[in-house]
Order: sequence, then C-alpha cells, then structure tokens
Amino acid sequence: MRANLTPDIDLAARLFVTLRERSFDGVGVTREAYGRGERIAHEIVRSEAEALGLETRTDPAGNLLMTLPGADRTAKRVVLGSHLDSVPQGGNYDGAAGVLAGLAAVAGMKRAGFTPARDVIVLANRAEEGGAWFPTGLPGSRAAVGRLPPEALAIRRLDSGRTLEDHMREEGFDPDGVRVGRCLLPPESLAAYVELHIEQGPVLDAEKIPVGIVTGLPGSRRWRAARVVGEYNHSGATPRRFRRDAAIALAELAHRLDEHWALLDARGQRLVCTFCVLATTAEAGFTKVPGEAAFQLDIRSVDPSALDAMQAELNRLVAQIEARRGVRFELGTGMASPPTPMDPAVRGGLVRAAVELDVEHIVMASGGGHDAGSFAQAGVPAGMVFVRNQNGSHNPHEAMRMEDFALAASVLTRWAAEMAA
Amino acid sequence: MRANLTPDIDLAARLFVTLRERSFDGVGVTREAYGRGERIAHEIVRSEAEALGLETRTDPAGNLLMTLPGADRTAKRVVLGSHLDSVPQGGNYDGAAGVLAGLAAVAGMKRAGFTPARDVIVLANRAEEGGAWFPTGLPGSRAAVGRLPPEALAIRRLDSGRTLEDHMREEGFDPDGVRVGRCLLPPESLAAYVELHIEQGPVLDAEKIPVGIVTGLPGSRRWRAARVVGEYNHSGATPRRFRRDAAIALAELAHRLDEHWALLDARGQRLVCTFCVLATTAEAGFTKVPGEAAFQLDIRSVDPSALDAMQAELNRLVAQIEARRGVRFELGTGMASPPTPMDPAVRGGLVRAAVELDVEHIVMASGGGHDAGSFAQAGVPAGMVFVRNQNGSHNPHEAMRMEDFALAASVLTRWAAEMAA
Repeated sequence: MRANLTPDIDLAARLFVTLRERSFDGVGVTREAYGRGERIAHEIVRSEAEALGLETRTDPAGNLLMTLPGADRTAKRVVLGSHLDSVPQGGNYDGAAGVLAGLAAVAGMKRAGFTPARDVIVLANRAEEGGAWFPTGLPGSRAAVGRLPPEALAIRRLDSGRTLEDHMREEGFDPDGVRVGRCLLPPESLAAYVELHIEQGPVLDAEKIPVGIVTGLPGSRRWRAARVVGEYNHSGATPRRFRRDAAIALAELAHRLDEHWALLDARGQRLVCTFCVLATTAEAGFTKVPGEAAFQLDIRSVDPSALDAMQAELNRLVAQIEARRGVRFELGTGMASPPTPMDPAVRGGLVRAAVELDVEHIVMASGGGHDAGSFAQAGVPAGMVFVRNQNGSHNPHEAMRMEDFALAASVLTRWAAEMAA
Repeated sequence: MRANLTPDIDLAARLFVTLRERSFDGVGVTREAYGRGERIAHEIVRSEAEALGLETRTDPAGNLLMTLPGADRTAKRVVLGSHLDSVPQGGNYDGAAGVLAGLAAVAGMKRAGFTPARDVIVLANRAEEGGAWFPTGLPGSRAAVGRLPPEALAIRRLDSGRTLEDHMREEGFDPDGVRVGRCLLPPESLAAYVELHIEQGPVLDAEKIPVGIVTGLPGSRRWRAARVVGEYNHSGATPRRFRRDAAIALAELAHRLDEHWALLDARGQRLVCTFCVLATTAEAGFTKVPGEAAFQLDIRSVDPSALDAMQAELNRLVAQIEARRGVRFELGTGMASPPTPMDPAVRGGLVRAAVELDVEHIVMASGGGHDAGSFAQAGVPAGMVFVRNQNGSHNPHEAMRMEDFALAASVLTRWAAEMAA
C-alpha cells in the first residue's frame, strides 16, 4: 500500500494560490509574525486541516498542530513542520512550502487509506523570520518544544515596538504558559522532526538538481555593530605616513579576510563570510581622510573548525592592521552559535526515500538557520529537505517550480510513511 | 632701511582676536562666503586698512584691494593675498592668516617709512572654501583676475540653494561685471602674487620647521559619485562562487590601489590617494550579500606622472576585479585638473628672504588648492609661504602659533619689499 502513497500536490497548489491572494501586499507577500498576515495564513491552513479531518490544536505560543492520529496514540510522534510568517514584501514559498508539503503528505496518507502506527503531526511554527520581526532566534519553534527562555518574551517587534508577550496575548495565546515551558511537543515525546524548505540559495538551480538532503545547519560568528576608528584629516594635505585612515583599514581587513576565505574554499572547507555592511560614517566627505567606518560581519559554517579558522584570521588581521595603520578596531559584542548537524538516521532515511523514488538529489549543508535547529537542539532527531528555487528568498521575485516541490514532497511523504509505519 | 623692515605682528594679533570674536559660532568660526561671516571679516579688515591710510577698493566680485601706493603707479604691482571666508565651524587661521600677514607687511613698510617702487596690494579674496559654500573652484580669485567663466555664476550655495549671482548681488556687488570679465587685477598688470597660508597638514609640525616655501599646487583626478554594482543575495545561502559582492569588490579596489600608492610612495613619488567615502548603500543589512556600494575617490599630486600612474592602476584594477567578481564599476564623471607649479623666480626669492632672515624652512608641495592657483593659471608669477599649524584645518581645533606666523610674515614682508623696491 505504501508504494501508492503520494502527496496531494493539488491541495498544496490550491493553498499556495490562496495564501498568495490573501497576503499579497501589492509587491510581494507580507505575513507579519504574530500579526495579520501570519494569522490569515494560519486560518487558511487550519480550515483545510479541519476539512481533511485532522485534529487541530494550538499550543501556548500559537503554533498550530494538525494531527493525523496513529494507531498507537502513546507512541513517539513524527512532526512535519515549517513556518507561515514571511519577511515584508517577501515570497510565497519561504516557510509555507514546508507546511503545505506536510498537509499534502497526510492528505496523501488519508487518500490512500493509510493509518500510521504513530501520530503524524503537521506543524505550523510561529515567527521564524527573526530578522524581520522579533530579532531573536526562532521563538515559535523554541516555544513549541518548551525551550524559549523567558527573557525572549520581552523582545520587541521591529515595526510595532511592542513585545513578543504583548503580541502573543493580543493574538489570543498564552505567554504565561510559554514562560513556564508549557508546550504540546515535549522533545521526549517525538520520534523525529523533518522540515521541507526552499533552498534560498542558488546551488540546486546551478547544479540542475531538484532536491537537497541537508547535512546540517550552520553555526555562526557574527558582529552586528563593529567599527574602526582612525582620524579625520585633510585628504590633500595629509601625506601617507601621517594617516590613520579608517576606510582603508577596513578595506584591507575585508579584502584580506576574503582572500583567506578563498584559500579555505579552494581547499574544500565550506563556509561563507560576508561584510553585510561596510561603510564610512556620515561625517565622511570629499577632501577628508575618513576617521571612522562601521561594519557588520557574518561568518557561517556547518564546520566548527572553519569558524575557528576564520575567527583566528580575523584576530590576526585586526592586530596587524591596527599596528600598521594606527587605527583601532572595536568589534563590539560578537555572537557565536555552534553548527547544528541533522540526525544521521533521519538524513539516511530521507536519502533512501529519494533513491527509492528515483528523485535526483544531492546531500548539502544549509546556508541559513531553520526551525529544524530548535528541534535538533532540544534533542529531537531532525532532518531537512531542500527544494530547488530561483531568485533567492526574502524578496518578491522568489520562485519555485511546482514539479520540484512535488518531487521533494514525495520524498517527505515516503519518509514519513516509513517512519510512522 | 630694508633691514629694519619687519611686519607689524601686533596689528595682526589684534585682528585675529577681533575676527574670532566677531565670527565665533559657539563651536568654531563660521564666515559664510558672500554671507554674514565673510562680510563682517571684510568690514574689520577694510576699516583697519583705512586706518593705516591704504587705498581700498572693491572689485565687481567683492574682492577687497587694500593698496600701499608705490612711487610709480603704472608699474606692475605686487599682490599679497588670501581669503577671509571659512568653512562652517572652522578655524580662525585658514585664509585670514594670509590677509593679515599682508596687512602686517604693509603696516611694517609704513612704520619704517618705506615707499615701494610699485603698488603693494593686500588682497582679500571672496569664496575660497568651495567644498563648504559654492562647489566650484575658487570663484573669488578667478573673478579677481577676470577669469571666472560666466556659468560659474549659476552655481548654488550648498546651504541657501541660491546662486552665486544672487548672493553677489545681495551683498551689493556686480555679477554682470564679473560675467564680462571686468576686474581690478588684470594679469598683465601684476608683477607677482604671493599667498601666506597655514599648511593644513602635519608635515611642518612633524619636521619641527616653522615655514614652508611651496613648489606647486597639486593636480587631481577625482570621482565624486562612483559606484559598484553587483547582486544582493542571502549571506547564508549563497556560496562563494555564486556571489557578486559589491562591498568586497570595492574593498579589493581600495586596498590594492592603496598598496600601489605605498609602492610609489616608497620610491619617492609624491601623491595622495583617498577614498573619502566608501560605503554599502541603505539597502544593505544583516544576512544580505551587498549588491551595491558607493565611493568617492580623490587622487592628488604636483607630479603629472604620478597622477597618470595611479589612473592607469585604477583602470587596470577595475577591469581585473570586474572580471574576477562579476561586478560592474560605474566611475561616473571624473574631474581632472593639472598640477600648478609655483613660479621658480618667486619661489627662489622667498627662499632667499628666508635664508637672509635665518628662518628655518623647507621647500614642499602643497596638498590642497589655493587662490594662488587662480593667479598662476592666469599667467601671474605666483608663490606661497606655508606656516606650521596644528590639528589640520577646516575644524574648530585648527591651531597656529603666533611666533610661527611672525617668522612666515617676516619672510613675506622681506620678499615684498625686495620685489617692490
């Protein structure tokens, strides 16, 4: 029977259209975390789940569980999750693809008359887009497993200036429950969590491969408010040896750190290193040697030794350039997070499903963080399936082909059926 | 008698105090070109000149001539000039030092009973600080020799948004006369122009030398609105080979051009190269690979071959980095001006005066442009005397010691007396 088990792609396709229509902002889609757009998306998905006859429940943080009950309701459960919020003027697929793939999978099971041995839960997490709304890592999915630190409730949404707690309460949820770790998905009750997501990057498209099976989520070293301080001087009247040029010091740092990345890259060490912002300040202007410059630096890798190597090179270059150019670097508070490997057994199961279905795929590291990281860090065996997409993500041009989505969803469905058999 | 000829430093010291008091803005001094501060400064200087018994006249552009008549009123005249405007919140000495040194010189001649063979004119030019007020080169001194192109009258003052013509008219001057080249200092009527000015840079202070005799004013190659265009991408999900990072491309250009400058500098080729602005644009932000960056580049040298060498290296690097990184540089309209050498005979006369007076001095290139350039370009033999100063210029901390000013003014006075003997 399991051989006939295919996801209900028509259902997903229909929901993509509805989601886009209802959250279109004139340019892209906007689904504010704990706000109007996310609320509409949850309503759409919940009523579809109810029409399918799934059990629906909302946890204290507002995460939505849509459960296909298993034969043994006490057995460890399987979760197929992602998120429904988007960045402002974002695309329709970042997040939503994973939730609709989960619904398509359980709809396929129902259609095939398949009753899983254990519960299969489709999970719509809240507030994944931290950079756009609540500047903290994954508050929705961390609350889903009862692991959101209470202080995160005080974080303010970037647009409204009001706290996560206020927004949760306004949407009818229970921040007091979140604060004491109340949840519906305690880690020990879960067999596995798998998330389907668009890749967000160009690798699958360039390789002409529709599906990626993810090895891990990157750790990072980040500096969001770094600067270099030198001295403003007259650009005509100040000879080279008298200069303490902040802009050239920063250019040297950026270029030489990039050359070091090129070296590691050529050796096959996988990481990314980005000066997201690199800028003289407002006081700069024509006929002045810049006395100050600001930067943001984002280094990520699934390989801890690559992060260590880049940090060591950064420290070495900073000391050298300070001595050479008479400037002072102020890196400010750096943030470090360790890489999160995906569970080898889950990854193996996903690869096996792809092979059995003859779906072309590669095994690859994720470039960004995802809700799967909250589950993995809570000790739940976690995995991810990437779908080839075009034009990146977090922009209205983000694109995905439905045939690629169908292939990835078929891998997800087969894996879930195996796991819940 | 000429041996006793010394500048009236007390007069200059007194005028420095008055100028500061009357144009202090709470932070530094502000003497707006064709505005309140410059007007006040001209009034102070003019009434002092009248008290000294000098002839005072104002040309169509508002430049103030204060003349000690010579025995032969038809002989070619000697001009001691500089400007009285300042940048906003600037220092008291940039510009004013040259005008007060001229007054001190002719006051010294009067005191010594010295009648020059030819007219000695102290000249207060208008609107020298182009970066602060009218963004064009030296409109006052170019008009002084009848060489201001009519289109410069349409340039708007950066703060008021009104034209140079309007501002001239409002101050009671004659822009129509300026337009047709009417002036009081036709080049062929002048024997020489010498300008005393603070150095604005750190060279004399570092060398512990009070006076500099200037070899020439730099030419320049300038790009005020250049940019690099690449592509915005997700900083986590975009591997190295897919990037078109505008910030890293610019950092590479800036660092490598700076290394080339270091090479030329080590070989003794004198120039300065400054990325005055170097910045990702407002769209940049965390988790994005920068898709665009802007820069301003200012290269100056008194040596045309150094300018050519840097421009060639710039072109080479731009092509190489475009090919290597998949970005596009848009340098925009560059501005080129040739170096302006000072007159060898004038320079020699200034050195001789310094030697005879036993004033420690070095011969050096100017880093910035000055009104002397307008005279030199009009064919008038021109020279400059630099005074050691501290804390650069164009800022309220700009400083100058009166004993250094006295030494430089004594060189100027002796040279003028020789020249006008």
